[in-house]
Amino acid sequence: MTNYPEKVYLNGKIIQANNAKISVFDRGFLFGDGIYEVMLQFNGHFFFGKEHLERLTSCLQKINIDFDTGTLPEIIQKLLASTNLLDQDCLLYIQITRGVAPRKHAFPKKTEPTVLLYALPFVLPKINKKPISVRTQVDFRWHRCDIKMTSLLGNVMANDMAIKGGHYETVFHRNHIITEASHSNIFFVKESTVYTHPADENILNGITREVVIGLCRDHNIDCQETAISFSDISQMDEAFLTGTSTQIASIRKIDDHEYYSGNCSPKLTLRLQNLFLKLKNSYTS
Amino acid sequence: MTNYPEKVYLNGKIIQANNAKISVFDRGFLFGDGIYEVMLQFNGHFFFGKEHLERLTSCLQKINIDFDTGTLPEIIQKLLASTNLLDQDCLLYIQITRGVAPRKHAFPKKTEPTVLLYALPFVLPKINKKPISVRTQVDFRWHRCDIKMTSLLGNVMANDMAIKGGHYETVFHRNHIITEASHSNIFFVKESTVYTHPADENILNGITREVVIGLCRDHNIDCQETAISFSDISQMDEAFLTGTSTQIASIRKIDDHEYYSGNCSPKLTLRLQNLFLKLKNSYTS
Repeated sequence: MTNYPEKVYLNGKIIQANNAKISVFDRGFLFGDGIYEVMLQFNGHFFFGKEHLERLTSCLQKINIDFDTGTLPEIIQKLLASTNLLDQDCLLYIQITRGVAPRKHAFPKKTEPTVLLYALPFVLPKINKKPISVRTQVDFRWHRCDIKMTSLLGNVMANDMAIKGGHYETVFHRNHIITEASHSNIFFVKESTVYTHPADENILNGITREVVIGLCRDHNIDCQETAISFSDISQMDEAFLTGTSTQIASIRKIDDHEYYSGNCSPKLTLRLQNLFLKLKNSYTS
Repeated sequence: MTNYPEKVYLNGKIIQANNAKISVFDRGFLFGDGIYEVMLQFNGHFFFGKEHLERLTSCLQKINIDFDTGTLPEIIQKLLASTNLLDQDCLLYIQITRGVAPRKHAFPKKTEPTVLLYALPFVLPKINKKPISVRTQVDFRWHRCDIKMTSLLGNVMANDMAIKGGHYETVFHRNHIITEASHSNIFFVKESTVYTHPADENILNGITREVVIGLCRDHNIDCQETAISFSDISQMDEAFLTGTSTQIASIRKIDDHEYYSGNCSPKLTLRLQNLFLKLKNSYTS
């Protein structure tokens, strides 16, 4: 994810990435007025690709961007073919903005959405074995975190604070309740029950979050969509993050509280990591 | 403000607006990772231009974008000269983003900021005589409204709701306290005292807001930077918005509460509008 792709799809054409340019009057540039998705292909399939595209559709509707996401599967195949990534493990980025218009806050009447896609070779580890540390801070972002928008400065600032401090992520709490992290969801384990914040306007309902909840359901692991208080962090037995490229990452340490030392994830996190790996290996569409 | 300029300044060059393009990997496009300013020139001077540039400098520092705003005055003069707007009444837009880098949340190590400026002919009315109506809603934006960033989707959505409903603005309240509007500040008047939200992280400290506070101080009008409760709106005598292009706009109606009917602003608002006009007429730098 730290390199440029060779080519991108932009508004109907597949072009060299260094020629891929948009107008300075694109509302994505002037207002952060856009929606995005990131998904991964492995074993020849986009992992829960249908769900990613459904979320993209839903988010576009939430901010009234009129774009037919039904056109995307064909575009994706053309992009992958032209970049020799058909059936290759790769990351796909999609961004749709409201398009180009003279600068004025309210939505312009008729604009053609700007459509950007690119794919990069990207190989996931079978299991994300990094025992990560995270920091916490008050959730200072807006109150519609269910919208996967490109107005991401809050997330970016929080993530930068984490990286600069040697952490993997910043975990947010709002009104003393743990919500999510800057680009991943968070789960806790207490006495064999798994907890995560309910999918309301305070979090982005991650696809991997939904997958983990489904794995719990299918394997008789008690999972409750109940938020954990900031003050209860040290009372939990285990904690982990979920995300498209994060997969399931065991949290070794939150701020000064250490859940465990060493490299091996605690019991239930490890079980879910193995169930997730099995699901990936058997995933067909 | 509803037209495109003919030319823009972009990264060192003055070019035709329809050729002004940025990379799709600009962090302004991918993350809304930028700061902007809007200022007005009339009578041959930018009105409180120094203060606008100081706020730009301060906001860039807040998000660690390393750009020397001391270079801007010369750029502005070149832009105005090339668009025949030297000494003409016009609006100037400035946007600085963190620049171009492969997509990754945390701030990249070394990028060259992207610098966009354009000017448009723009003539202010002497006094903004529109008696406006506004709607209110819970402030769902982030909690660093003191940063004038381009991640504006929250502001844009709220402004769009206002326009679609036939209003001029959306006024926000957070925790039952009136904060500001989607692109202007709000003042109230009660028994000859003027009230506005203090300049903390809940509002953008508007230049016109500061000018109005200064006018009150200079003319022995009691002005308190004290927030007004949402539930006290109907107890106020007058209300008005301030902003660079809004100037001082009298609020005739908030939601269902009508302050007055007819076209003439209430007494203290009218007095401030006239004092503001005098200041404009005498402004020299």
